[in-house]
Amino acid sequence: MKVITTIGDMKAVINKHHHQTIGLVPTMGYLHEGHVALVTQAKKENDIVVMSIFVNPTQFGPNEDFESYPRDFDRDVMLATEAGVDYIFAPSVTEMYPRTSSLHLHVGEMAQTLCGASRPNHFDGVVQIVTKLLHIIEPTHAYFGQKDAQQLAIIEALVRDYNFPVIIRSVPIIREADGLAKSSRNVYLTPIERQQAPVIYATLQQIQNEVWTIAEGIAHIEKVTTGKVDYLTKLSYPDLTKPTAETTAFILAAAVYIGTTRLIDNVIWEVTACCAQ
Amino acid sequence: MKVITTIGDMKAVINKHHHQTIGLVPTMGYLHEGHVALVTQAKKENDIVVMSIFVNPTQFGPNEDFESYPRDFDRDVMLATEAGVDYIFAPSVTEMYPRTSSLHLHVGEMAQTLCGASRPNHFDGVVQIVTKLLHIIEPTHAYFGQKDAQQLAIIEALVRDYNFPVIIRSVPIIREADGLAKSSRNVYLTPIERQQAPVIYATLQQIQNEVWTIAEGIAHIEKVTTGKVDYLTKLSYPDLTKPTAETTAFILAAAVYIGTTRLIDNVIWEVTACCAQ
Repeated sequence: MKVITTIGDMKAVINKHHHQTIGLVPTMGYLHEGHVALVTQAKKENDIVVMSIFVNPTQFGPNEDFESYPRDFDRDVMLATEAGVDYIFAPSVTEMYPRTSSLHLHVGEMAQTLCGASRPNHFDGVVQIVTKLLHIIEPTHAYFGQKDAQQLAIIEALVRDYNFPVIIRSVPIIREADGLAKSSRNVYLTPIERQQAPVIYATLQQIQNEVWTIAEGIAHIEKVTTGKVDYLTKLSYPDLTKPTAETTAFILAAAVYIGTTRLIDNVIWEVTACCAQ
Repeated sequence: MKVITTIGDMKAVINKHHHQTIGLVPTMGYLHEGHVALVTQAKKENDIVVMSIFVNPTQFGPNEDFESYPRDFDRDVMLATEAGVDYIFAPSVTEMYPRTSSLHLHVGEMAQTLCGASRPNHFDGVVQIVTKLLHIIEPTHAYFGQKDAQQLAIIEALVRDYNFPVIIRSVPIIREADGLAKSSRNVYLTPIERQQAPVIYATLQQIQNEVWTIAEGIAHIEKVTTGKVDYLTKLSYPDLTKPTAETTAFILAAAVYIGTTRLIDNVIWEVTACCAQ
């Protein structure tokens, strides 16, 4: 396992591996089992696995947690090595953004809902850094978690609409034993909040199974936790528009503030016609 | 020489040439010696030369000449074959834009001057199609003429700021014997307009040599032709900002309507310190 911190060194390494398949696992570090699942999948499908570790400032709003986002590079290197990563690409902010650019990538309609509604320009920053990473590392496959479902849908649209020569792979959400989706931000939770947090996933399941309406689910979360629901929405997947009579794939997604920690989770399912009528 | 019309076929061909150097010459067709000069340069520096021929609708304004832009595909194929092009990539509009995208590339400050000032969103369309072509063809080198100097500067910024794995090469303006810059749009000129058109370049040279001021140059063009100057501007190059005391590279660029035909031209020069003081 080798750590690389400059774009030039990274490009030089990639040029040596051009005849091989390269899997990219983009992360913001503070690795957990969710990231390890991405690496495991990438290792199965590629000769070489590159993990990027970069807390990307352009996807954080002015009042968000860029400064305090949890970081532990030494632990990340250890976990990535154990998982079988070949190269970690860990550039500085100046290395990635040496100057103000006159060129802006903007996500329209797909960023108007779910997380995008309360995090303006978040996804502009996401597609900016993903575009740069795809150009620097030139992976044959890139791996994203389904936990960030809107991010995944937007990146799939980016790759499709701009013909990036990469295959996007997604990996299901990895959960704690009590159902809480693994997240680097879970470390922010107090012990009491940590006990409350699994209610998000439990509620999504109740709504998915039509035991509760969305309104009942929101009321439940806000009753049994100290939390505040940012959104809890059912959309068609992957286009993230309002479901119609023709919709066959759905996402039920939520963002909930538990204390000051914003947690996201979702369930995605397909309805397929089956059985003789 | 082989003509390819689908993205899938083009990607399949490129994958066969992945171990070779690939030169891309993006064009809107109706080829002239300026394009041939790009191909000649590309052939010197690459194993394989791909020319794209695509009149890109997204870089034309609603009142511009997209529909009437000159096209002659059979002649282009003949000229490209003679010049030594290996593959022509000539997709349909539907092949390149099968759906409305939610993701937009926007050029800021660098597009506020010169052609961008009178052609809003023109350069948004240019960077959109160039991004797609670079992803489909994955060239090691891409060739652009210095005639479209603002386009060249913006594409260089795009490649630099988004780390595209390609080297951008530029080729000087090719001119008719009387100085008129070669352009596909020259066919629009009536015989009288054709006689008047060389005054653009002659005037740029007079201003560059400080015989005339910019105002005098504009007045001259509008006196000796039936034309109207859209702009005639001196900027620092390649950042296209107002020259300061520190500026050492300059562009003097003009766009002139001769009748209804909009012609552009420019001269670029560097001032280097020399000689013992």
